[in-house]
Amino acid sequence: MKVYLDNGATTKVSDEVVRAILPYYKKHYGNASSLHDFGAKAKEALEKSRKIIAQEINADPEEIVFTSGGSESDNLAIKGIAYGNKKKGNHIITTKIEHPAILGPCKELFLEGFKVTYLDVDKNGFIKLNQLKKEISDKTILVSVIHGNNEIGTVQDIEKIAKICKKKGVYFHTDAVQSFTKEKIDVKKMNIDLLSASSHKIHGPKGIGFLYIRKGVNIKKMLYGGRHENDKRAGTENIPGIVGFAKAVQLDKKLKQIKKLRDYLIKRIEKEISDVKLNGDRNKRLVNNVNISFKYVEGEALLMHLNDRGIAVSTGSACSSQSLEPSHVLVAIGLKHEDAHGSIRFTLSRYTTKQEIDYTVRELKKVVKLLRDMSPWKKGINYEAKEGDHHGY
Amino acid sequence: MKVYLDNGATTKVSDEVVRAILPYYKKHYGNASSLHDFGAKAKEALEKSRKIIAQEINADPEEIVFTSGGSESDNLAIKGIAYGNKKKGNHIITTKIEHPAILGPCKELFLEGFKVTYLDVDKNGFIKLNQLKKEISDKTILVSVIHGNNEIGTVQDIEKIAKICKKKGVYFHTDAVQSFTKEKIDVKKMNIDLLSASSHKIHGPKGIGFLYIRKGVNIKKMLYGGRHENDKRAGTENIPGIVGFAKAVQLDKKLKQIKKLRDYLIKRIEKEISDVKLNGDRNKRLVNNVNISFKYVEGEALLMHLNDRGIAVSTGSACSSQSLEPSHVLVAIGLKHEDAHGSIRFTLSRYTTKQEIDYTVRELKKVVKLLRDMSPWKKGINYEAKEGDHHGY
Repeated sequence: MKVYLDNGATTKVSDEVVRAILPYYKKHYGNASSLHDFGAKAKEALEKSRKIIAQEINADPEEIVFTSGGSESDNLAIKGIAYGNKKKGNHIITTKIEHPAILGPCKELFLEGFKVTYLDVDKNGFIKLNQLKKEISDKTILVSVIHGNNEIGTVQDIEKIAKICKKKGVYFHTDAVQSFTKEKIDVKKMNIDLLSASSHKIHGPKGIGFLYIRKGVNIKKMLYGGRHENDKRAGTENIPGIVGFAKAVQLDKKLKQIKKLRDYLIKRIEKEISDVKLNGDRNKRLVNNVNISFKYVEGEALLMHLNDRGIAVSTGSACSSQSLEPSHVLVAIGLKHEDAHGSIRFTLSRYTTKQEIDYTVRELKKVVKLLRDMSPWKKGINYEAKEGDHHGY
Repeated sequence: MKVYLDNGATTKVSDEVVRAILPYYKKHYGNASSLHDFGAKAKEALEKSRKIIAQEINADPEEIVFTSGGSESDNLAIKGIAYGNKKKGNHIITTKIEHPAILGPCKELFLEGFKVTYLDVDKNGFIKLNQLKKEISDKTILVSVIHGNNEIGTVQDIEKIAKICKKKGVYFHTDAVQSFTKEKIDVKKMNIDLLSASSHKIHGPKGIGFLYIRKGVNIKKMLYGGRHENDKRAGTENIPGIVGFAKAVQLDKKLKQIKKLRDYLIKRIEKEISDVKLNGDRNKRLVNNVNISFKYVEGEALLMHLNDRGIAVSTGSACSSQSLEPSHVLVAIGLKHEDAHGSIRFTLSRYTTKQEIDYTVRELKKVVKLLRDMSPWKKGINYEAKEGDHHGY
């Protein structure tokens, strides 16, 4: 049996999306900037797709800037606001649990002389609104807080965060790469100025994403050249990618079914495997995310053994999965290094079945037992004596 | 009859490329950074494709950095070298006939305090090597010259240009978006430091390109986040796009056939329509490019009438086709504004047939006659008296 539970890393492109893409490869392959019928057909598809995507977050179509994916959207948001608002200030606020595509440009800006504040999070992964309020100064130009965390699944209250930012006259950006289509987002009602999303997390093609930029937001371009995308991002529009993305948005439903399976997986693991801990908030979490620390187990070994049984999961996010450092997100919520290293992320999709979850739990139990039986930690530690451990095992 | 002669703007994705892509949508959809089998399969496809593409220009695989397309590659080259070598100097040399994706970042850098020299070109579109030598100073950090021009098709002698740059210790970049797979390129033999290319110009998918960066070249990243692409470009790798690109490289042959049809088209237009002029060099030109000025005719009207007859062509490059300014390339080679406005670009592909060319010439003759019969220029001007016109009509 093959079970893919790494949908937070990337997803299968759905058959309907593939069917929507194909005509734009083979027939309507024009450049949307061309004046002839091939171009007009491409342009039409572009604007129709833009409208579908804008509606999903209650944005206006011209506020959607297509990019090559979540990383570009995040970089454009962070660098674009920083460079575009230098005169106003040099201070950016973000959090300790952001995706590397936010932390990367923030670090780079810091090296260039910007000031960056990284907000703490509590043990469930929530930022503290009071700390945010306190940190905003008259030099602050941007607050960027991830919506649904890619590792632990915690969903921040971005409406409250954005309200604080609006009151203080500071731009608010959210990385919604994991939450887009999974959580209800209304950029107008929620006062969001910028929002990043990506297609390949929702059964659309790779290589396409968008940055929502509220009308009137002052942002500096990153890619110069043609005046594509409302003069905010140069480059021939990736029409098949965009058409596929829009189709994926229309199809990414069945949230209740995913959530039900998520809770079933959590419940069974907690019930049937000892010494486990759910990371992230139990309720305010992405419908498809399960992140569990297995005590006395090395996450990577667990991953490999599951892989041998046809089950694909992740330790931390895929972007950092080849690094030996413990996940910065798990460290930020207070996990000790060895517990962070013993964590596994299962991310479901609408294609996940109960049968797959049952198979996963069955194999997981075997593998955890196998690894714990060999574990030097388990052998050397009197677990009972550690009950006071603040991580709640 | 539908005749697509705008392959310089973008191309149909070939059926073989689509077939190569599909398994990576539906089956091997893993994230190349993931540690499980789905990830390994993606990683394998990534590195295999990288090798195929590297071989095409005699680069080492690790010198190929996949991007979202030609515009990103050009921006990364120009901005990356500028920001990465600030300490050495602040002077960039390019030409008056570059693609907007080069001119755009150059203009931006100029606004930030860099010095930019735009080399002249002669009436056939060639830069003058002596001017290049003269302009290189100890503040020069980069020379960027387009290989095969996207509008007039002129192919520069980049080997000679690169040799001059190497001797002076200055990085050399070439925008090879139009020439890649059409002209023989050997980055080692030719001493090229950076080279941009794009998939959708060679019957591959949109949204994918690469920047070749010679080992040892000092370049600043543009997209920060994960350490993808040899730590030079963050973002989940677009595996289906990359696989399709590699397949497209392997398939983009039949250059002799394309060239023969190109010359047949030029010959027939020159023989059968009066008052026309071929723009760009007759011999050193892209195998698929025909750019003709039709005197007494408005290019856009010509384009529209051809479009009504099912023939897709372009006036100037697609990127600027919605602008009213005359093409900067045609102005640079000395065309008067009205002649630049009367120019049409026909760009062929390996799918172009003789029958299509015959149909195009037949309709073109009708349309040119129709437009000239209505032309105020034609009526008001005694053409015989203008024989001394330096544009060679």
